[in-house]
Amino acid sequence: MNDLSLNKLDRLVAELGDIPVVTDPKVVRRRSRDFFWYSPILNELLDGKSADLIVAPRDESDVIRVAAACARHRVPITVRAGGTGNYGQAVPLNGGVLLDISALTDIEWIKPGVLRVGAGAKMNAIDAETQAQGFELRMHPSTKRTATIGGFVAGGSGGIGSVTYGGLREHGNILAARVVTVEEKPRVIELRRDAAQKINRAYGTTGIITALEMPLAPSWKWIDVVVAFDDFMDAAAFGYEAALADGIVKKLLAPVTWPLPSYFGALKPHCPDGKSILIAMIAEPSLESFKALLGNRGTITLETPTDDSPGQVPLYEYTWNHTTLQVLKSDRSVTYLQCLYPHDRLLEKVAEMRELFPDEVLQHLEFIRFGGRVTCSGLPVVRFRDAHRLNEIISLHEQRGVYIANPHVYTVEDGSRYKRADADQLGFKQEVDPFGLLNPGKMRSFVSARA
Amino acid sequence: MNDLSLNKLDRLVAELGDIPVVTDPKVVRRRSRDFFWYSPILNELLDGKSADLIVAPRDESDVIRVAAACARHRVPITVRAGGTGNYGQAVPLNGGVLLDISALTDIEWIKPGVLRVGAGAKMNAIDAETQAQGFELRMHPSTKRTATIGGFVAGGSGGIGSVTYGGLREHGNILAARVVTVEEKPRVIELRRDAAQKINRAYGTTGIITALEMPLAPSWKWIDVVVAFDDFMDAAAFGYEAALADGIVKKLLAPVTWPLPSYFGALKPHCPDGKSILIAMIAEPSLESFKALLGNRGTITLETPTDDSPGQVPLYEYTWNHTTLQVLKSDRSVTYLQCLYPHDRLLEKVAEMRELFPDEVLQHLEFIRFGGRVTCSGLPVVRFRDAHRLNEIISLHEQRGVYIANPHVYTVEDGSRYKRADADQLGFKQEVDPFGLLNPGKMRSFVSARA
Repeated sequence: MNDLSLNKLDRLVAELGDIPVVTDPKVVRRRSRDFFWYSPILNELLDGKSADLIVAPRDESDVIRVAAACARHRVPITVRAGGTGNYGQAVPLNGGVLLDISALTDIEWIKPGVLRVGAGAKMNAIDAETQAQGFELRMHPSTKRTATIGGFVAGGSGGIGSVTYGGLREHGNILAARVVTVEEKPRVIELRRDAAQKINRAYGTTGIITALEMPLAPSWKWIDVVVAFDDFMDAAAFGYEAALADGIVKKLLAPVTWPLPSYFGALKPHCPDGKSILIAMIAEPSLESFKALLGNRGTITLETPTDDSPGQVPLYEYTWNHTTLQVLKSDRSVTYLQCLYPHDRLLEKVAEMRELFPDEVLQHLEFIRFGGRVTCSGLPVVRFRDAHRLNEIISLHEQRGVYIANPHVYTVEDGSRYKRADADQLGFKQEVDPFGLLNPGKMRSFVSARA
Repeated sequence: MNDLSLNKLDRLVAELGDIPVVTDPKVVRRRSRDFFWYSPILNELLDGKSADLIVAPRDESDVIRVAAACARHRVPITVRAGGTGNYGQAVPLNGGVLLDISALTDIEWIKPGVLRVGAGAKMNAIDAETQAQGFELRMHPSTKRTATIGGFVAGGSGGIGSVTYGGLREHGNILAARVVTVEEKPRVIELRRDAAQKINRAYGTTGIITALEMPLAPSWKWIDVVVAFDDFMDAAAFGYEAALADGIVKKLLAPVTWPLPSYFGALKPHCPDGKSILIAMIAEPSLESFKALLGNRGTITLETPTDDSPGQVPLYEYTWNHTTLQVLKSDRSVTYLQCLYPHDRLLEKVAEMRELFPDEVLQHLEFIRFGGRVTCSGLPVVRFRDAHRLNEIISLHEQRGVYIANPHVYTVEDGSRYKRADADQLGFKQEVDPFGLLNPGKMRSFVSARA
């Protein structure tokens, strides 16, 4: 309960009227978690953190009422939806209200190339709607089937699709956001152009996002492809060539080192023993060109249309941080890192890291565009020894020019690094959250000018 | 008439039956030209070159009959369609038949992302058909309103759209080609995958292209935009940023130095005195992000939907080699070059060339992707002194790391340089044109093994 008096919470709940509230402690504690447990360090740090109650607004006017009440009573608010984050984005550090915005799912409109949608809409549901009109989200995380667009923008950075469009931090990948301020008289602010970056990867600490305007990509019939290679560096080299091939339309290119595929459950029949693989999503009309580029360098072991409808496990759920999850299913001793390789020494650095940690850091790479250059992100699976060694591994990467966005810290400032956009999020927070109520401690450098 | 006896041509014509033939010398001479006269050097070298007659096949079976007859009588064939080339691609070096394939316009089929079409179809007509289905050609030259797809593939290299998809030489930008061989019993060969590169920019010397399978891009509502800048290097720097911005969907980014815009006829009201401009085509949903990226660095002087329907002059007709044409309309003393800037020292090299030839080489750049990297092509307008100085300018560029595809030579080998694809065109020619009848001299290193 921290420093909140029961009395205060009672008064708050009373003021919320008919807005749904959950107070069952078991449910509240369970919903106060996300997937931070991929990190043994966060697993300790965030253990037991919980909200005091869940409030589930049905629409934006409910959000405004909750924000006003919390501001009056100085009760913290932590926004949550799918809860698929890995840095405790949905974990209240100081109790209070867990604001579950999952009901804000309305699609306001779809125009050619643009969508206006409630922050709580699931990305899979968005794609189902927009694909009927020939469009789809430009990018999504590997958690697309359960994650929401608001959570992705607030706590993600890129993913499947970033090999073509770059990450959320690139100009044009978030068109606008509507946020509700946490004040006694909340305001609704429309952030357009560069201003929209003020809510990008701020973990929900810079206003309550209620709606987003997102650019759409033309949708393709995507083909899931697995290619097996004798050597991981061959998979990486071919993936790099394919990423550079602007005439080949693709959504995902992810080389995965053996033995990671040995953990790949349902995919194992397509993962020959001892082989590293490349996981790819290629637009059907480009598949022939993709194969021509491949030549005899690898063997295609799977080729099937992408299917992420309910009950299906799409191929992308073996990439990005789902690779870690696939291993964690049978081996809880591992964790992961987030790397960005320098675009001008890409394969050289991949090979260098590989030699440095041959069995300890198991690489998979996700090719992306970053600042207009092809490079790769990598979320290697790390055999965890202790925090000291993990930090040493991070340092050794950084000393050698491989950037790390540390996923074993939970604050905005410590974790974001290369994933951040250029925007005055701290200054903006003074405007929209003057009392510092949006998950206090999450943006650790914030000191309220008014509290 | 060169070394062809009148008798031989008479017999040839007789064998063509009802295939349309034109022998009026005035018409034949006029149609034996293209836009090689942009080069004062080619203008001398190709002066007076002409076919002996024009043959205009109505379909592929007519092409086969002409090829057979020409092979039997050892009569040269030069393929021509729109005649918009600049290197004499359509100019017969040794007389013979001018094969006008303009009637091969059939669209065989359009699938999502792919088109199968006769080589003589105009690109503007193709886009009109495919746009109704939400697609368009990935790229086209500035001559799109009159050029054909066969001519583009045989004699072009890229253009508007290459800022996103790269040039024709990139994997996946030509999916397949059907060619008729020049033999007594002509064969029809389907070239797929890498093999399709055997006809790429071979100026029609490696078989008679009758049909092409081309990848399509999703079509956007494009907005023509002109931005004025005080300084050309500011236009170039912003164009570079926009080219690198993967979240902004664009088709054209071309900075143009003052005083070139002073020659821009109908566009002059949008070209303020003394200002360099950036010419852009931006997808409508990306326009706001484009403007956000621009900020206060330049002034938008034109913003209007792209319109290249009959009677309209689209903005792209002030870029690529149309820039040269705009100047030639009032000043016949200029010519041009074709440059490729190194992607890793781009703006530095642009500035260096600018300082080296301040008034003699007037720059405009066309941002492109080349091998997966953003760089720029440049077709500067050159104040022509003489051939010696022109070659000196070329050498000075090359010595400093700026690649030149010399447009003042007419053979495949001499002119192509960085525009070439990796394919054994010379070897393939022995297969499909064993007597060397396809515009003899154009692929100058070819020596027939059988002639």
